[in-house]
Amino acid sequence: MKTPQHAPMNQFPIIEDCLHVGGRSIRNIADEIGGAPFYVYDRQLMTQRMKQLRSTLPDGLVIKFAIKANPMPAVVQHMSTLVDGLDVASAGELRIALDTGIDPADVSFAGPGKMDWELKQTISAGATLNLESENEMERAAKIGEQLGIQPHVAVRVNPEFELKSSGVKMGGGPKPFGVDSERVPSMLKRLGELGLDFRGFHIYCGSQNLNPESIIDAHNKTVNLGFHLAEFAPQPVSLFNIGGGFGIPLFPGDQHLDLAPIADNLEARIKDVADRLPTARVAIELGRYLVGEAGLYVCEVVDRKISRGEVYIVTNGGLHQHLAASGNFGQVLRKNFPVVVANRVVGSKREVANVVGPLCTPLDILAAQMELAVAQPGDLIAVYQSGAYGYSTSPIAFLGHPPPAQIFV
Amino acid sequence: MKTPQHAPMNQFPIIEDCLHVGGRSIRNIADEIGGAPFYVYDRQLMTQRMKQLRSTLPDGLVIKFAIKANPMPAVVQHMSTLVDGLDVASAGELRIALDTGIDPADVSFAGPGKMDWELKQTISAGATLNLESENEMERAAKIGEQLGIQPHVAVRVNPEFELKSSGVKMGGGPKPFGVDSERVPSMLKRLGELGLDFRGFHIYCGSQNLNPESIIDAHNKTVNLGFHLAEFAPQPVSLFNIGGGFGIPLFPGDQHLDLAPIADNLEARIKDVADRLPTARVAIELGRYLVGEAGLYVCEVVDRKISRGEVYIVTNGGLHQHLAASGNFGQVLRKNFPVVVANRVVGSKREVANVVGPLCTPLDILAAQMELAVAQPGDLIAVYQSGAYGYSTSPIAFLGHPPPAQIFV
Repeated sequence: MKTPQHAPMNQFPIIEDCLHVGGRSIRNIADEIGGAPFYVYDRQLMTQRMKQLRSTLPDGLVIKFAIKANPMPAVVQHMSTLVDGLDVASAGELRIALDTGIDPADVSFAGPGKMDWELKQTISAGATLNLESENEMERAAKIGEQLGIQPHVAVRVNPEFELKSSGVKMGGGPKPFGVDSERVPSMLKRLGELGLDFRGFHIYCGSQNLNPESIIDAHNKTVNLGFHLAEFAPQPVSLFNIGGGFGIPLFPGDQHLDLAPIADNLEARIKDVADRLPTARVAIELGRYLVGEAGLYVCEVVDRKISRGEVYIVTNGGLHQHLAASGNFGQVLRKNFPVVVANRVVGSKREVANVVGPLCTPLDILAAQMELAVAQPGDLIAVYQSGAYGYSTSPIAFLGHPPPAQIFV
Repeated sequence: MKTPQHAPMNQFPIIEDCLHVGGRSIRNIADEIGGAPFYVYDRQLMTQRMKQLRSTLPDGLVIKFAIKANPMPAVVQHMSTLVDGLDVASAGELRIALDTGIDPADVSFAGPGKMDWELKQTISAGATLNLESENEMERAAKIGEQLGIQPHVAVRVNPEFELKSSGVKMGGGPKPFGVDSERVPSMLKRLGELGLDFRGFHIYCGSQNLNPESIIDAHNKTVNLGFHLAEFAPQPVSLFNIGGGFGIPLFPGDQHLDLAPIADNLEARIKDVADRLPTARVAIELGRYLVGEAGLYVCEVVDRKISRGEVYIVTNGGLHQHLAASGNFGQVLRKNFPVVVANRVVGSKREVANVVGPLCTPLDILAAQMELAVAQPGDLIAVYQSGAYGYSTSPIAFLGHPPPAQIFV
């Protein structure tokens, strides 16, 4: 039996055995910014990914970027020119979104624990609140009244079904997210009484899914649930956000998601929606899928050690700067991200090595027992698939090392 | 069979059913600093813990504080007046340590990936480098020569044995930490040739251990290993750091560590060392044990939801501010930290609830299915055992929420 391998990573050209990003060698980039560690994101790859999506997915589909995946302001600015809307998860992210100059009507705020001051800022901005509970609806109405502004709201629904085979499950059964679907009709009645501006539904079941059938199944169930709930809506549905969940290959055995069947099914569902809810546009919301493959995390080899037969490549980056790659963010059993020696991708000699960071904890692993070119101090290590949930999910201050740079080329 | 319970948490008084820290109610503290979320650390508890250690552990034992456990400058300042030395894990932590005014001779720097500029800063300061590899030794010698300063060094040893039943294992078998014990004699020969100032050994096997017998076993093996290695030392051993590893109860079933047998054994080992290595002082290095129980993490209830029969207490704090309590820092199976409703500890009514944060991820859990007083929006939730590896190990920027305050009362 063959061991599972990483999907081929060919988004960054390799010239003279060195990774290139944005037309420049990784060594040249490191020199420009004063050395590794750093994150580098490639705007051309993000543009290409959006082009590919637009040409594959049906016309008329609204594509939103969930900026939580990569809230670097320059990245969000670039993405705002490519997508139809931005989804934010905090007042801090709302600020970044609005600073791009986007129409606030194209911004939505989802998150289960919104504070009063966050509701106030969102309503003042004219962005849409994805309501997560009846209580939040009442608070939003009160704040809208105080401000003399009618809040734009959508209802986040916790469906009875789940998105199967997801890396992260966010719907089905008891959940902290949204309102149980069976309670939504009575909530919509109250929403009308409160005089809120009802925009539609937000039904988000899960993320990091690589199985087209599961995604199709969730889309179909979500659309049906929307049809049912729309009967209770106080105003016609204008936006029907059916979630995202498109995954990217991270671990050995993961394959690139096949979009074609998802696109075919979406086309049919969009026709259904046009028939039954003619005022509603269908939206999907993507984060990792749009930016994840466009980023690398790069650190420098500081030491090369052999301990009782195992090779340890010790770097100046690690868990504190890339928690997900260390296996400490939502993984139960640790698996390797794709990792290479960036300035010596193939190399003249190869070996099985562990790549570890500078922290005094055995959790600080970037690659365990991986086949790599033989690396020496001064070489650069690159972790692929680091354009989403890399920098921002990491405990940067842990142990007091300087933060990595983030650049967008 | 009884379900495992958390060890009783009685370090903070409960007055009128409200937690008190430093003589003040948690509500009063929240009001003073502009509301939750925040971390609060109690200096009196840290002082008491050190007093208790000094009276239990044998005279002459050097006790060092590993500031990585809580690098808040005010905490490090306080601890520097109580302990015999500080251990740091980066140049950033070195700065915090030296800013307390401590004698640099009482500061040591351990960490497997030290950069040249970190070696330079440490040698310039006159602190001790715990050498993690032969390569690091050569680099330190070269930098010392360039600076015209003789580096103070200790050798971090990777023993053949491990610290059994540790939460975190850092010795035994192949490891990125230190130099395999069998290679240390030849390294010591070279260390003498290089003219480095040899201080002694650092042998650290693991941390968060609650089993006295395992700790005693590791201490005994460590001392024996030190005796063996000392025969190859180029200068008499002046400091023999036998590590730490004393744990605190975090999860259901954990009990407070019984220090008495550890103290008895240490007394015997210190006598052995006095006989065989008369110039050497024996040191232990503690982090979590000194400060972990002296801290609380506090956040505010924003919403109370019932989803399909389960209660969700949604707060404005969570995974991004306390990664360890969310179960995403080194845990394989998630377990609850001790959590209470801080302003309603016993309460008039109790229920089984989930405490979750404001993030759009199912990982954002502070307590799963825990019995708590019935909490309402505005109530405060406190997570015990948060004085170590809380704030600094968390991805504070994740999703763009404001950082929690840290205060020291």
